[in-house]
Amino acid sequence: MAVKAQVLYDFTAEPGNNELTVQEGEILTLTNQSIGSGWVEARNSRGNVGLVPEDYIEVKTILIISFVFDFDIHRSLVFQSVILLLSVMVILCHMAVGSVYSFDEEWDDDSDDGKSTGGYGGSQAEEGGTMQRGGAHSTMKLSLNKFPGFSKTPNPEVYLLTKHISKGDDRLPIYMGEVGPVWLYPQIQLDCVVADPKKGSKMYGLKSYIEYQITPNTTNRPVNHRYKHFDWLYERLVEKFACALPIPCLPDKQVTGRFEEEFIKMRMERLQGWMSRMCRHPVISNSDVFQLFLNYRDEKEWKLGKRKAEKDEIVGVKIFSNIDPELPELDPAQVEQKYEMYSQFTRSMDNSVKELLAVGHLHWKRCTGPLQKEYRQIGKAFQNLSSVFNTSAYPREYTLKEALTATGKTYEEIAEIVAGQPKKDLHFLMETNHEYKGLLGCFPDTIAVHKAAIDKVKEADHLVVMNKISQQDKLIMEKNLSTMSYALQAEMNHFHSNRIYDYNRLVQFYLEEQVKFYETIAEKLKKALGQYTTM
Amino acid sequence: MAVKAQVLYDFTAEPGNNELTVQEGEILTLTNQSIGSGWVEARNSRGNVGLVPEDYIEVKTILIISFVFDFDIHRSLVFQSVILLLSVMVILCHMAVGSVYSFDEEWDDDSDDGKSTGGYGGSQAEEGGTMQRGGAHSTMKLSLNKFPGFSKTPNPEVYLLTKHISKGDDRLPIYMGEVGPVWLYPQIQLDCVVADPKKGSKMYGLKSYIEYQITPNTTNRPVNHRYKHFDWLYERLVEKFACALPIPCLPDKQVTGRFEEEFIKMRMERLQGWMSRMCRHPVISNSDVFQLFLNYRDEKEWKLGKRKAEKDEIVGVKIFSNIDPELPELDPAQVEQKYEMYSQFTRSMDNSVKELLAVGHLHWKRCTGPLQKEYRQIGKAFQNLSSVFNTSAYPREYTLKEALTATGKTYEEIAEIVAGQPKKDLHFLMETNHEYKGLLGCFPDTIAVHKAAIDKVKEADHLVVMNKISQQDKLIMEKNLSTMSYALQAEMNHFHSNRIYDYNRLVQFYLEEQVKFYETIAEKLKKALGQYTTM
Repeated sequence: MAVKAQVLYDFTAEPGNNELTVQEGEILTLTNQSIGSGWVEARNSRGNVGLVPEDYIEVKTILIISFVFDFDIHRSLVFQSVILLLSVMVILCHMAVGSVYSFDEEWDDDSDDGKSTGGYGGSQAEEGGTMQRGGAHSTMKLSLNKFPGFSKTPNPEVYLLTKHISKGDDRLPIYMGEVGPVWLYPQIQLDCVVADPKKGSKMYGLKSYIEYQITPNTTNRPVNHRYKHFDWLYERLVEKFACALPIPCLPDKQVTGRFEEEFIKMRMERLQGWMSRMCRHPVISNSDVFQLFLNYRDEKEWKLGKRKAEKDEIVGVKIFSNIDPELPELDPAQVEQKYEMYSQFTRSMDNSVKELLAVGHLHWKRCTGPLQKEYRQIGKAFQNLSSVFNTSAYPREYTLKEALTATGKTYEEIAEIVAGQPKKDLHFLMETNHEYKGLLGCFPDTIAVHKAAIDKVKEADHLVVMNKISQQDKLIMEKNLSTMSYALQAEMNHFHSNRIYDYNRLVQFYLEEQVKFYETIAEKLKKALGQYTTM
Repeated sequence: MAVKAQVLYDFTAEPGNNELTVQEGEILTLTNQSIGSGWVEARNSRGNVGLVPEDYIEVKTILIISFVFDFDIHRSLVFQSVILLLSVMVILCHMAVGSVYSFDEEWDDDSDDGKSTGGYGGSQAEEGGTMQRGGAHSTMKLSLNKFPGFSKTPNPEVYLLTKHISKGDDRLPIYMGEVGPVWLYPQIQLDCVVADPKKGSKMYGLKSYIEYQITPNTTNRPVNHRYKHFDWLYERLVEKFACALPIPCLPDKQVTGRFEEEFIKMRMERLQGWMSRMCRHPVISNSDVFQLFLNYRDEKEWKLGKRKAEKDEIVGVKIFSNIDPELPELDPAQVEQKYEMYSQFTRSMDNSVKELLAVGHLHWKRCTGPLQKEYRQIGKAFQNLSSVFNTSAYPREYTLKEALTATGKTYEEIAEIVAGQPKKDLHFLMETNHEYKGLLGCFPDTIAVHKAAIDKVKEADHLVVMNKISQQDKLIMEKNLSTMSYALQAEMNHFHSNRIYDYNRLVQFYLEEQVKFYETIAEKLKKALGQYTTM
């Protein structure tokens, strides 16, 4: 199946770089998504093929899914429709989360220690039903497997309708903080250092992989994990939390970097970013699976914990039953208004982040391409002039000649400073925004689950009148909706607080580096200027 | 006739700007040379038409000239060949000097006060002979008229063979200075201020013109001149001095600038540059015609002086008879070596200056085009992010929101600083290099006259043996060649001294402005940085 993408921003091809000039709004066919370094290959409507920055386009996956659920009708038809609606949401979740992935193979693919993706297919068939995918797009196949937790999820109405009691250990309290409902934050914030990537091999050297050392600040004892272990953790977190908490995707399997060393460094840096974000989350960081990942003592403990995590029953919408807001019940109308705002905000921020990524990308390209070339040319021109002056045989040439050479060399230095600058400042800005782009991409799905619940609760009065549910059921539904709402509010407040911290830090860092950049150049030029005789 | 041009540097068209991408070495047909602002319209071999920066191309004028000189054979055939050779040089001079002009009409064309170009045609017919131009290129017609002095020149061999006596008043002494042979420099260097352009009109307002006020530092009394008067002065200087001194062309009739005011300002600035250069020249500044131009007291004195200047007999190669080097006679071999060096140096410098102009042009375009746009986009992206953050309803938003707005506005300011910078620094660098490009373009013709003379002197021994000239003739030729050589050396030393002064000043100025530029941006970013809360 052809993957289509819509162009978000005008992009002008640099001649001779195999690029494709595209206009905002244009629809492209992606011909190769595994180019890497932030580029994809695409074909326009006129049949021209070339590279386009991936931040400039938005992939439009067209996928026809027909599904039949095979389940016990143990309540009324109404609940069937609730299930159906939530199931659609789940499918949409699948698609959205999945579409971020665009590579078919695992970077270091092997299937030791029983972590086969086939396992999810099995559990899907057991508990969910059959799914037939229209088209045979392998990316989508992977995508559907990526969000398997939902197909294991016990019927969601169990949460909306059951008067549950929070269990001691798994209880997730929500308090009223200064900014509104907030999760319970630990006294000491968990963090970890991802470092020391080591190449390992197995099967007598036939297969090689990279193992990273992760050291949590709590134990200060390092554990080793491969990318696929991170991926396993990600899948567990999605299964367990994604209905309540947007779980940002792991860094792409294929990340930028031309050389293996650069690739490993970049992946490590992104895994570090992802882990730090997970550590910062009070719910995630405190979860058994996350603690296992960071603290396992030996292979046995790891395997045991892994098996336990894979059998975890509290996944999907069921996670809400652990949430315990010690706060007054909320009015559904209020809840809905807030959801609309969250939805609007995350969508707007997503656009804004993409815009920043697009201009950042453009600027990066300008600095490392035409600008570097131009400053080199300026440098050369001054040096050539100096060489010519040197041949004059005029006795008073020396000072000017030397000064011009110094000026030329200075501009050549500036060329390298300009070309090297994006790595120093723009890099962090781009990486963090890239992370946010991924995170923001998860919100619509999370919010959609909540919105679907609201819609059901809004129908409750009518259902009571129609005698389809009892007054008691309705009250339970409203209470549970309130709980769900507190969860989303706590999550949004967590997001806001992190966002303010992150953007404050990142723009500050960017500006600091930019100031240094301009000051360094001014200093260099001043030095060159000092070589001239004052008249 | 189609004007062809060869491309000196690769140039990539900016999309949507009506520009033409060209490659170094490509031959273009110029379709419109009167675009202005440093651009010409050209057609490539594939028939595409677009704008190309004029500094990126070299006009190749193809002109077939057949000439018949009708003169008294009063010496041997040898001298006919000398005349012929020097005449060819003269024709080449005509072509070269003329080719700088590419516009047909005078900016303020009228022909009051008897300054008709027709007059030169007359004197040409009278004294020279008939010239038939192949092709009917009006530019060339103008060009030939631009260098009319040579057709008036009495037979050049008169100078090479006549033992002349320097006259008191017109005597041009050359001394041995610290750097070699030098002109006699005045105690106080003449300079003038070109200012206060005033629009005048005549014929009841049907014709309008601009009159500039020129105030020399010697009298401090302003005189008024129109562009055509400058042009008249230029023609007189070429007639009189161009064999010995390269007379840089007047600023183009059509100079850059979109609006009348800008146009007038730019022309004034360039006339100022030209006048200052002329004032700095000890021979030119001291000449009667230049003094008349700066010091005439009334219309009567101006008209009288003008008539006298137009009748001046000491023009063309005859100017060498005024030159009086009080120095030992030079060996022709030495002379030749020096000429070769001068030739090489001016050619190399010409290339280097063109390179600097080309990169300068490119950089100018980059700053006012893509870079400005990009910094505006960066500014917009930060401001948009700030706007989005402002909608969060999160209580701790204010500081970051304000800081991001300030950052965005700072980048918008930087966009304007970047776009405005070339006018502040590159402008002067470009203008001075443009002036030097013009000046360097005159050297080949001046040096060619000298080289032709050398060739003749080198043949002298042979001619003596063949009894075509006397031993006495040979000695006179050698002495006169030595005088010519001293003139060129003095002129080269004048050029070098000015060059060192000019380039020292111009690069210094450029670097000073560049330092200010980078410091200003650093300051602005620091201020924006100050808005963030430190964590």
